[in-house]
Amino acid sequence: MSGSLVVVGTGPGKAELMTPATLAALAKATDLVGYGPYLDRVPVTRRDQRRHASDNRVELERARHALSLAAAGREVVVVSGGDPGVFAMAAAVFEAVETGDPVWRMLDIRVEPGVTAMLAAAAEVGAPLGGDFCAISLSDNLKAWTTIERRLRAAAEADFVIALYNPASKARPHQLVQAFEHLRRIKSGETPVLFVRAAGTADAKVITTTLAAADATQADMRTLVIVGASTTRRVGRWVYTPRSEGTAS
Amino acid sequence: MSGSLVVVGTGPGKAELMTPATLAALAKATDLVGYGPYLDRVPVTRRDQRRHASDNRVELERARHALSLAAAGREVVVVSGGDPGVFAMAAAVFEAVETGDPVWRMLDIRVEPGVTAMLAAAAEVGAPLGGDFCAISLSDNLKAWTTIERRLRAAAEADFVIALYNPASKARPHQLVQAFEHLRRIKSGETPVLFVRAAGTADAKVITTTLAAADATQADMRTLVIVGASTTRRVGRWVYTPRSEGTAS
Repeated sequence: MSGSLVVVGTGPGKAELMTPATLAALAKATDLVGYGPYLDRVPVTRRDQRRHASDNRVELERARHALSLAAAGREVVVVSGGDPGVFAMAAAVFEAVETGDPVWRMLDIRVEPGVTAMLAAAAEVGAPLGGDFCAISLSDNLKAWTTIERRLRAAAEADFVIALYNPASKARPHQLVQAFEHLRRIKSGETPVLFVRAAGTADAKVITTTLAAADATQADMRTLVIVGASTTRRVGRWVYTPRSEGTAS
Repeated sequence: MSGSLVVVGTGPGKAELMTPATLAALAKATDLVGYGPYLDRVPVTRRDQRRHASDNRVELERARHALSLAAAGREVVVVSGGDPGVFAMAAAVFEAVETGDPVWRMLDIRVEPGVTAMLAAAAEVGAPLGGDFCAISLSDNLKAWTTIERRLRAAAEADFVIALYNPASKARPHQLVQAFEHLRRIKSGETPVLFVRAAGTADAKVITTTLAAADATQADMRTLVIVGASTTRRVGRWVYTPRSEGTAS
């Protein structure tokens, strides 16, 4: 077993948000495996490095391919966007290990953390994640919509700040509409809502609105939505959630 | 208003996990403001850079000091650990802006995202944050313990993975004990629990246990605790949460 597998995230997009540890792993790899647009972010540092680009929907298959390459002695890096452990490839790799060839369990596997989308989105607008928060993916490709609804209600009732990953796609235009409906039943209409598109890139765009006025059609696949807690507030062009529960003092 | 203020996070500890954008902001600053141990992580690149180290408990005071320096024309960087927007300095800066000198609202203020502790902790053990998750600080310095209890119960009932920041300190040894008691009433005793100490540093240490067996005295100020969802599972030395709700397939 001379091969290895490292799972990395390229961060939100800008090269300046990719960690040196991730860059070093990428430079050392003989093989890169990932969704094409993420591979395109990786600078070419070796002419002998093979790139295995795949479609976005085949995560488990891609993970198995990467593990096979590592088992054959290659130095493989699996490339995600953001942080690889948040709605990305790391979980798919370990699922493939659990359900695949027993020799894969003996491989040298490592995960390198990165800057996940909600942190980049929060930084664009101030500090909306300043208190307790949760992260929910609205994609029901892999879980029931009823589970998502239950988590939205629980998060609203316990007054977490809520970061919504994968809020909408062409195949799923209605889920964010429904999510806002659930949240409006529990939270004040004045709650700040942020649509942050392409956070952590040169094209970042922020819409700051309220839960009452939030228009779900303003989200697409590159948008991260943050719904504030009861304490989340605007100050000038910024939005933040105070560390304390009371009014700012 | 020629001064500026950038809020950065140094990441979990290792220099290789600090982003190039953060390093660039640090190198450009005339003044660094932060808790002493975080300032010590910043490489010295300019002889004329002033360092203003302060105690850990005076966040709002430190934020006001940084804003005063920026208003006086200095290029100030406020230095947090991890990501500055997650239980760190960014919220304190905006709270100081809201409640302080009105001219501070006209300052050039920016936040640079970083790698927060739970991402580094998750990477040390696999992919435990692979599904929906929440982050709760157990410190009740700034919020009521009853609020924390309500959030713990809601997170357990809705089957989130739970990352616990600030799980224990010398002044608060009993809160993690109580948190585990709440979670045990709702979640299976077999739920994986991870104590990750000094994640993202050369001294990282992981304890993998179960909710039934978890011993709160194993956490200290440098520990991040992750409590799994019902689907979180072990495979070899790793722990991961599958992206899907069902069993791995």
